[in-house]
Amino acid sequence: MQYGMFDDENREYVITTPHTPLPWINYLGSENFFSILSNTGGGYSFYKDAKLRRLTRYRYNGVPADMGSRFYYIGDGSCVWSPGYLPAKTELDSYRCRHGLGYSVIESEKNGIGCSLTFFVPIGSNCELHHMELINKTDQEKQIAVFSAVEWCLWNAVDDAQNFQRNLSIGEVEQDGSTLYHKTEYRERRNHYAFYHVNANISGFDTDRDAFLGPMGDWSLPLAVREKKSRNSLACGWSPIASHSMELTLQPGETRTLLFMLGYVENDPECKWEGPNSIDKTKARDLISRFASDEDVLAARNRLRAHWDTLLSRFSVQSDKAELNRMVNIWHPYQCMVTFLMSRSASYFESGTGRGMGFRDSCQDLLGFVHLIPEDARQRILDISSIQFEDGSTYHQYQPLTKRGNADIGSGFNDDPLWLVACTAAYLRETGDSSILEESVPFNNIPGSERPLLEHLRRSIRYTIEHLGPHGLPLIGRADWNDCLNLNCFSTDPGESFQTCTNFESGKAESILIAAMFVLYGREYAELCKRFGDAEEACEVLSAVSEMEQAVLQHGWDGEWFLRAYDAFSRPVGSKVCKEGQIYIEPQGFCVMAGIGVTDGYAAAALKSVKARLESEHGIQLLNPCYTSYHKELGEITSYPPGYKENGGIFCHNNPWISIAHTVLGDGNAAFDAYRLISPAYTEYKSDIHRTEPYVYSQMIAGRETQRSGEAKNSWLTGTASWAYVNISQHILGIRAQYDGLEICPCLPDEMDGFTAKRFFRGTCYIIHARRTGQNYPRIWVDGVLIDSLTVPPNGKSELHVEVEF
Amino acid sequence: MQYGMFDDENREYVITTPHTPLPWINYLGSENFFSILSNTGGGYSFYKDAKLRRLTRYRYNGVPADMGSRFYYIGDGSCVWSPGYLPAKTELDSYRCRHGLGYSVIESEKNGIGCSLTFFVPIGSNCELHHMELINKTDQEKQIAVFSAVEWCLWNAVDDAQNFQRNLSIGEVEQDGSTLYHKTEYRERRNHYAFYHVNANISGFDTDRDAFLGPMGDWSLPLAVREKKSRNSLACGWSPIASHSMELTLQPGETRTLLFMLGYVENDPECKWEGPNSIDKTKARDLISRFASDEDVLAARNRLRAHWDTLLSRFSVQSDKAELNRMVNIWHPYQCMVTFLMSRSASYFESGTGRGMGFRDSCQDLLGFVHLIPEDARQRILDISSIQFEDGSTYHQYQPLTKRGNADIGSGFNDDPLWLVACTAAYLRETGDSSILEESVPFNNIPGSERPLLEHLRRSIRYTIEHLGPHGLPLIGRADWNDCLNLNCFSTDPGESFQTCTNFESGKAESILIAAMFVLYGREYAELCKRFGDAEEACEVLSAVSEMEQAVLQHGWDGEWFLRAYDAFSRPVGSKVCKEGQIYIEPQGFCVMAGIGVTDGYAAAALKSVKARLESEHGIQLLNPCYTSYHKELGEITSYPPGYKENGGIFCHNNPWISIAHTVLGDGNAAFDAYRLISPAYTEYKSDIHRTEPYVYSQMIAGRETQRSGEAKNSWLTGTASWAYVNISQHILGIRAQYDGLEICPCLPDEMDGFTAKRFFRGTCYIIHARRTGQNYPRIWVDGVLIDSLTVPPNGKSELHVEVEF
Repeated sequence: MQYGMFDDENREYVITTPHTPLPWINYLGSENFFSILSNTGGGYSFYKDAKLRRLTRYRYNGVPADMGSRFYYIGDGSCVWSPGYLPAKTELDSYRCRHGLGYSVIESEKNGIGCSLTFFVPIGSNCELHHMELINKTDQEKQIAVFSAVEWCLWNAVDDAQNFQRNLSIGEVEQDGSTLYHKTEYRERRNHYAFYHVNANISGFDTDRDAFLGPMGDWSLPLAVREKKSRNSLACGWSPIASHSMELTLQPGETRTLLFMLGYVENDPECKWEGPNSIDKTKARDLISRFASDEDVLAARNRLRAHWDTLLSRFSVQSDKAELNRMVNIWHPYQCMVTFLMSRSASYFESGTGRGMGFRDSCQDLLGFVHLIPEDARQRILDISSIQFEDGSTYHQYQPLTKRGNADIGSGFNDDPLWLVACTAAYLRETGDSSILEESVPFNNIPGSERPLLEHLRRSIRYTIEHLGPHGLPLIGRADWNDCLNLNCFSTDPGESFQTCTNFESGKAESILIAAMFVLYGREYAELCKRFGDAEEACEVLSAVSEMEQAVLQHGWDGEWFLRAYDAFSRPVGSKVCKEGQIYIEPQGFCVMAGIGVTDGYAAAALKSVKARLESEHGIQLLNPCYTSYHKELGEITSYPPGYKENGGIFCHNNPWISIAHTVLGDGNAAFDAYRLISPAYTEYKSDIHRTEPYVYSQMIAGRETQRSGEAKNSWLTGTASWAYVNISQHILGIRAQYDGLEICPCLPDEMDGFTAKRFFRGTCYIIHARRTGQNYPRIWVDGVLIDSLTVPPNGKSELHVEVEF
Repeated sequence: MQYGMFDDENREYVITTPHTPLPWINYLGSENFFSILSNTGGGYSFYKDAKLRRLTRYRYNGVPADMGSRFYYIGDGSCVWSPGYLPAKTELDSYRCRHGLGYSVIESEKNGIGCSLTFFVPIGSNCELHHMELINKTDQEKQIAVFSAVEWCLWNAVDDAQNFQRNLSIGEVEQDGSTLYHKTEYRERRNHYAFYHVNANISGFDTDRDAFLGPMGDWSLPLAVREKKSRNSLACGWSPIASHSMELTLQPGETRTLLFMLGYVENDPECKWEGPNSIDKTKARDLISRFASDEDVLAARNRLRAHWDTLLSRFSVQSDKAELNRMVNIWHPYQCMVTFLMSRSASYFESGTGRGMGFRDSCQDLLGFVHLIPEDARQRILDISSIQFEDGSTYHQYQPLTKRGNADIGSGFNDDPLWLVACTAAYLRETGDSSILEESVPFNNIPGSERPLLEHLRRSIRYTIEHLGPHGLPLIGRADWNDCLNLNCFSTDPGESFQTCTNFESGKAESILIAAMFVLYGREYAELCKRFGDAEEACEVLSAVSEMEQAVLQHGWDGEWFLRAYDAFSRPVGSKVCKEGQIYIEPQGFCVMAGIGVTDGYAAAALKSVKARLESEHGIQLLNPCYTSYHKELGEITSYPPGYKENGGIFCHNNPWISIAHTVLGDGNAAFDAYRLISPAYTEYKSDIHRTEPYVYSQMIAGRETQRSGEAKNSWLTGTASWAYVNISQHILGIRAQYDGLEICPCLPDEMDGFTAKRFFRGTCYIIHARRTGQNYPRIWVDGVLIDSLTVPPNGKSELHVEVEF
């Protein structure tokens, strides 16, 4: 069952009911001002950092989950309705929400009044625009009242939810015509404020929440709205809001537009005031003046569209599979861009107050956006590597506002360093820009500690080599990619974080996943050394890689699949000798991706075991059988109910690894099956089971062991976004950046006979036609000339035509 | 305007409308299980620690502020109502909420159905009982449906509000007949669970919130209630709740009772299970069996009443002032007991996730409860002193569950050590139990560091002596009692805590308040040394006290009042030379309390300045004029809007100091005026302005500089509770414990001619009759015999009659 449909032409998902199983959200903003927006107008906005600069208040754990955030009420006679259904909950005569690329439009109608509300963050401005178009579709004159409201968050979202003995006394606002200013804490150490403006004369306003809502009032029908009378309240402490009211008369057929702006301004700390207790509003007025007319708004909409046109034109595909085209041309890159902007910080599942930018998250996300925004990718690599320590280990996270490592979480995730190699190599292959390797990058952001990025990579690799366990396999540290497999944790205290406690330093627990990563990314590093650095270093590392591969084959093979790890007592994890958790997905995917066991049948056997033991109707589960009791020697993974999260849920991030592994073995059918199994476009039909947004991946889908099998959670911010995109584009369609050019080597399922693609690469647009002719090995013609390689170098021209037969 | 009235006979405040300006709460529990309960049934419950063992979920920042928590719905035909008005919001035919001592009763009626709901935590059991009595007052048979619900918090209240990517996947429950178990995280590291039970057969249940509420449903009318049909849902992740439903038939005049129990159980970690995935329920069943009948419940109610009878009998007064009697006999001790139990951790303003038990808070609270619960006071002193460091400084807070110092806040509040002297001396004077001084107490809870408590006191005193500034006055450190006067902070970063950042170590900023404390409590310590320890030490300290007194007179007097402090540049704070903040309240009260300037007119002049410059209609403000801009050299105090909190609000805690100071000068009229000005019983009539609960003190009342002058905030958990009680009982009524007996020296206003009091003291009940006869100096008869002292030693008998003429 569905609650809407894809509109490929407009690059939108069109939701046809406000009654979606969960709030279905979109992201606005692509620079510094960001917003989460649900299909009923819920969510919140922030500047750069969802924890430290939260502009509007959102209630996680809310009941209902979403009550709006951009609160709009239309009073038409005795009927009060909200264009987005919430908060008023008045049933609408019609409703559609179109989530597009960086904008959303909610269109609704009630009693002959049509309302279209367009939300977006314009490029180059720190504000969110809400463009409201009202039309009287009746043949009567209509007198309507329009009320708006937003509720301010007191900047720091954690403090906002805890420190009430202070918070309820500090709220400060100003009102200036139709602009309502939020300036809490501006008197002291802040030099930023927010404002909410409407480009019309108002009949009243409110800035005190209780005055607006009335005693025991809630957002569904504030007292001021019910009585159609703003209180003109000026908040002094308690909960400051901003609300406008307007009375409009609409003739039959008449259309009226209103532009609401939620803005953020930073002043020079030396020039904060324009008068006693009156903030300097120059920048706000300037921002307002930029969007004075509907034409200004339209122009901004067009600039936003052009921005996305440019991004999406970097890579597109046409095939006979509409779902595949839809994903590759729209939703894969869109979700990747959101993970670029948000990492794992702010969604309807990530509170914005916890993890900032993850180290490994950002590195992996980059694999999906490096060809879209190579300059930003470059900066991200430099930001990330700045939180690395001198010994090659890294902070696990950093706060986006400060770009400093997060000391609460610390380090010790032993896979982290290798991901830096992975993303830097991807950047180099995409751009050929070797200057990045010479960029001077500090360790732990300490001035004076700067070394070239290449040295950072060297230390990443060395970190693994220097931290091997009894079997010659990498020590796992706190955890590897699987945060919840905590082999040195042994936590018995309730409430203790599995990720930050370390009460057992075994020096024995080893990870086959990191081993496979080392084989894969160690080779990447060696290649990079050969090309840009130091042949001797390359040679040394290749030797270490070779030893690692042998160690995996010797100590990491369980008979029918790869082991997952050795625990602190050197007992195997993910082995047939285990009672539960006999097989894990990660090493099966990553070992094969790294080429381990490909020639001796191990790889094929491992993937066969995955199919037999892990694949389910809704995706490939992380492990099997699920753990039914807690094992303190395995950590958090055994704390989840069976079938949830890492304990045997379908943890989508690793599903593309299996698909890619199939392409390594040349099995396009199995690869495509694995891709399709969890691909949004292919699973949309079961939206009622899936429940999260059908246009993006979720982190997790409940496994068959649960009563809620097939239900997804933690949508949007997942590494699945980049890996699924990498999989379909680079491995199934087979178009991948290499140092010397664009490699094209499709591994399609039998049901596909070919495709056409456009791919910008180092200044050239490759126009690629691939068709199945049953070759043993693909053949490639460039501009009509057969070449003796699968890699097509850029030719310095704007276009290049490639014919591929496979 | 009032919203209820005091019922002195029943020792209750009776609220006559659910539409109070704010939720008006009560506290249940006196041992380990605690609950906050509002007059509409809102609030939450926890075991020992509001942060680490939160049982039910509460939404601070909620809209509306309160939507219930113990959710009850009565479905009578098409009408659904809640006995507490919320969450259903159906207007009731009658409503009363009686907040009593450790219990509350909500009585309401709708369409001829009466419902009385009694809430309390029985002594000796870890549970909250909700005893519901339904009566059919009509002459028709009534079929009614009763629905209950509570929403579980996932134990750690901070994590519960942040870590959704985990939380939404971990919820686990069990259902067993009419008992619904919450066992989230029990599989792993917890050995505790909670349950919600009703002593009746149920027709259905729900444990999954979304199933119960329905799509976009809220608590006001859950889908299950609207359809009168429980879903029998078993939660698996998301938000677990517990809800029962019952169908009842009530004949005309018939009464039916139901007992709901919210319980908490800890199992032996080795015996957690009674079967596969089935928790051991033995203790829950035992708890349930203890309250099987209405008689059991009544007996528990009686035990609770007896508990409070005993406590309140320790001290009572009868005078011709009903308000005074009411405060002294009921509400003063009651609020003090709540601060004993809660410190500043959990109220409708304190989120329960921030400050645990404060060091100085607990020390001062103890002054108000030491005569009520001397054994608990003894333990509290030992707990508190265990977080002291070896150099005499202390952690500022500790977590009640672990009793370990809170490293996030740290130390450096230089008044803290002296409060330990204050409370230990109060304990000794009350009990004469000098054995406490020999108790072995660790520093910072480090095993092996134990030293006698007396040594801790010595280090407290030494800490002050060894940290003096340029004027020979005590260095202030991070702050003294006034947390917000941060003279070494110089914070310019938004979001930074003023209490934890220290970026400027001046070695110059000095506190006149700490100086006065040292004079007062240095003398207390010297007296204690003389009696129990070391005469030489006493002598030395008295010499230091004398020097300090001189330093205050020389460097702490501004001409018409005492200075507040010297800042980091040795500039005066709280001086006529300042532009704003010319006079502060604290040193005026404390210096006079310490006897400084009493003989030379400084004291009288200081109190005259207080009256002229700080006293307002609603209380005595903290400073004047308020700061209108931020001064980084003064810190947080200048960050509040003028008239709020420390920036010139009426910060009630210090008002009793002024009143006591007046008694030091023998001015009973001024003392009583200051007492009456903020006393709940005397300010009840302006409940609509005050807005917080009229039966307890609030931390702060907005000053005249604000538009909300007279509005109180942060009710219940304030040091005002103990100081106001100390003031009225020990200084105005003048009955105070001394080492050698009970001193009686009234300082009444002219309008009072005397009083009768009962005071238990070291095993003897003193029956005191005091009457005004116009003596220059009071005269005392003990059992008819005139004695030559104001101090009456206990006589070893159960009763002792004291006549006082003054």
